[in-house]
Amino acid sequence: MISERMEKQIDFIVAIDALKDITRQSITISSRRYENDAEHSWHLAVMAMILSEYAEDQTIDIAKVISMVLIHDLVEIYAGDTYCYDEKGYEDKAEREQEAADRLFNMLPEDQAQKMMSLWEEFEEMETKEAAFAATLDRFQPLLLNYNTEGQTWQRPGVTSEKVLKRTEIAKEKVPQLYEYIERLIQRSIERGMLKP
Amino acid sequence: MISERMEKQIDFIVAIDALKDITRQSITISSRRYENDAEHSWHLAVMAMILSEYAEDQTIDIAKVISMVLIHDLVEIYAGDTYCYDEKGYEDKAEREQEAADRLFNMLPEDQAQKMMSLWEEFEEMETKEAAFAATLDRFQPLLLNYNTEGQTWQRPGVTSEKVLKRTEIAKEKVPQLYEYIERLIQRSIERGMLKP
Ligand SMILES: [Ca+2]
Repeated sequence: MISERMEKQIDFIVAIDALKDITRQSITISSRRYENDAEHSWHLAVMAMILSEYAEDQTIDIAKVISMVLIHDLVEIYAGDTYCYDEKGYEDKAEREQEAADRLFNMLPEDQAQKMMSLWEEFEEMETKEAAFAATLDRFQPLLLNYNTEGQTWQRPGVTSEKVLKRTEIAKEKVPQLYEYIERLIQRSIERGMLKP
Repeated sequence: MISERMEKQIDFIVAIDALKDITRQSITISSRRYENDAEHSWHLAVMAMILSEYAEDQTIDIAKVISMVLIHDLVEIYAGDTYCYDEKGYEDKAEREQEAADRLFNMLPEDQAQKMMSLWEEFEEMETKEAAFAATLDRFQPLLLNYNTEGQTWQRPGVTSEKVLKRTEIAKEKVPQLYEYIERLIQRSIERGMLKP
C-alpha cells in the first residue's frame, strides 16, 4: 500500500523540478548563460560543506545551513526571482514570497510543511548563526560568478562597489575571514574596471 | 591575511561551477530540456530531506546522504556523464572517474580532499546504508522525470522495463516502501505505452 503521505511527498518532489526554470541574474562561468535557482542552491550547499570552518561561531549546525540553502529559493517557483538591486521589485517581495511559501510547502504532509516553512522563515530573518552563514554564502556566490565573468551583472546602471559591499555586510561580523576575501575581490574588480567604485 | 588554504577552497568552488554544464540524459519536466548534473544533485539532496523516513535502517545519517549526493557527480566535470544503459561507456567508467576524482578533489586542502574522496568512494561502493539510500535516490529521480515527460529517455532502443527495474534493485531491500512506488510507476508506464515491457 502506497500511503497518501508518500503521494504528497512525491508530488512535491515533482513540483519543485520547476526551480530549474527560475533564472537568476548571474552568469555561469564557462558557458556564460543565466544560472538557475536549482544550480545556485546546489552551489551554495557545496560551499557550506567546504567553508564551514570560517563561521565565527563554531557551534554552527552545518547540516542545518545546508538544508536551508537547498530550500531557500523554492518560493521563487511561484514568486519569481527578484534582482537584489531592484528597489521596485523589493516593495512587495515579502508578500509575494509568503503566499508562494504557503502554496508550495503545504503540498507536503503537515509536519514536513511546518518544518520547511520554519526553515525558510529562519533563513529570511537572517538572525540565527545558521541563517547568517547561509545568507553570507548566498551573497558571496554571485560575486564569485561575477568576478569570473568580467563582472557581467555589475555592468548594469546603478550598480556600484558600495552597493555590492553593503549587500555582503552580514559576513563582516559572522564570517570575518570570508569578508576579507570579499573586500579584496571587490577591490580587484574595481582595479580591473569590472565594477564602478 | 587571506590564507593559502582559503585560496584553494575558493578555487575549487569556482572550478565546480562546471558541473552546471554537464548534461544528463533526463529531460526536465516543464521546460523539456536536458537536465544538468548540478540541478540533478540539488534535486537528490532535497529528496533526501523529504524521504528519509523510508530508509529501512532508521539509524541512517541523512546529513551524510545529503553531502554524498551533493558531490556524487563532481567527477563528471572531467569524466563526463556515462548513460546508465551505455554498456560500452561503462567499460572504462571507473578508471576515468578515478582519475577525475584525483585531479578535482586534490585542488582542496589535503584534509578536505581526503574527506571528499572517501565520501565519493563510499557512494560508489554502495555498501553503507547512506550510500544505498543515496543510490536509491539517484536511480529514482530520473524515473520521476521520465514518468512526467511521457517516458522521454525510455524511447531509446534497448531500454525495457526489465532493465529499468533492475537498476532500481538496491531500493528493494534498503528502501522497500519506495520500491513499491517504483514498481507501480513502472507498471503504469508500461500500461501507458511509455516504456517497453
Ligand atoms: Ca551519474
